[in-house]
Amino acid sequence: MSLRIAYVTNNPNKARESVFILREMNIEVEVVQAKILEIQSDDISEVARFRAKEAYRQLRRPVIVEDAGLFIDALNGFPGPYSSYVFKTIGINGVLRLMKGVRRRSATFKSVVAFHDGKKVRTFIGYVKGRISLEPRGYSWGFDPIFEPEGLKGLTYAQLPLEVKNKVSHRRKALEKLARYLIEKGKHLKT
Amino acid sequence: MSLRIAYVTNNPNKARESVFILREMNIEVEVVQAKILEIQSDDISEVARFRAKEAYRQLRRPVIVEDAGLFIDALNGFPGPYSSYVFKTIGINGVLRLMKGVRRRSATFKSVVAFHDGKKVRTFIGYVKGRISLEPRGYSWGFDPIFEPEGLKGLTYAQLPLEVKNKVSHRRKALEKLARYLIEKGKHLKT
Repeated sequence: MSLRIAYVTNNPNKARESVFILREMNIEVEVVQAKILEIQSDDISEVARFRAKEAYRQLRRPVIVEDAGLFIDALNGFPGPYSSYVFKTIGINGVLRLMKGVRRRSATFKSVVAFHDGKKVRTFIGYVKGRISLEPRGYSWGFDPIFEPEGLKGLTYAQLPLEVKNKVSHRRKALEKLARYLIEKGKHLKT
Repeated sequence: MSLRIAYVTNNPNKARESVFILREMNIEVEVVQAKILEIQSDDISEVARFRAKEAYRQLRRPVIVEDAGLFIDALNGFPGPYSSYVFKTIGINGVLRLMKGVRRRSATFKSVVAFHDGKKVRTFIGYVKGRISLEPRGYSWGFDPIFEPEGLKGLTYAQLPLEVKNKVSHRRKALEKLARYLIEKGKHLKT
């Protein structure tokens, strides 16, 4: 009998979305809170990969971790890998201020999911292109109120019902790739 | 015969200032460029401490590393530990934009110097209080053109001759503490 895969995060919003998405794909994970060492890098894949190794070292069971960031083209990718720090400090209003009067509003939300099976780490990348809105709309966490994903009539992530966001999000795309991998390998099965 | 202490950095501006300051205190270091793993933390002391351990592990000789950041009160400490990333992306103009119309312009430049002697790490903290200027003045690296240290007639770091900046800077204050420690312990001597 082996344990369920641990989904390691301290962010309850991320946990809620990920559990929901994975469950739709018949993958049950256990959310585990743990303080995991995180490296500084402009490359979120590197950050996620390192964190998966650290999490595995600490928990000694298969783990999933995720790193995500909002990359704004006109700001050279800012806030990117440091999105959560930027959210905590200057917040949505700070980002809108930086974008005031800026015409080129394209941005990409990226998610990198890293899975460590005890032997090695694999990463799965999902991204969604969109635009930074002119003002916040809707109520949700992080930068969701100012990100308008392409093809959704200019609604922000925060204006979409969670079920809809969870069908189209960067997180969904990364987790879908992970799910396909797990199902193919039979790694999601408790034995 | 032991080696000189290695001052590990990839930032030539930092190297120039630090070598200058330490030399004034009769401490000779060798600047070593190396890619050192860096952690994410809101606490730059923790970042510096970790990096000193990594640098020692890699080089196997006494090492000095430094982490510094500009903490702006009205922005909840932003850009803080991620100052160099913020400089690379939104730059000085981005920070000024965030501070446009903001009256409370107080900020602190902090430096944490970490020294690993092969047994343990010690950290030395220096800080300088000041203000964010209304516009960039002077030519220099990083956020120097918009930081006015207290008691220097409203000149920015960038407007001061390097010898003057090096007498009053956050970096100077941290390195002075390190120098006193090294001299007291006789650790700066090549034997």
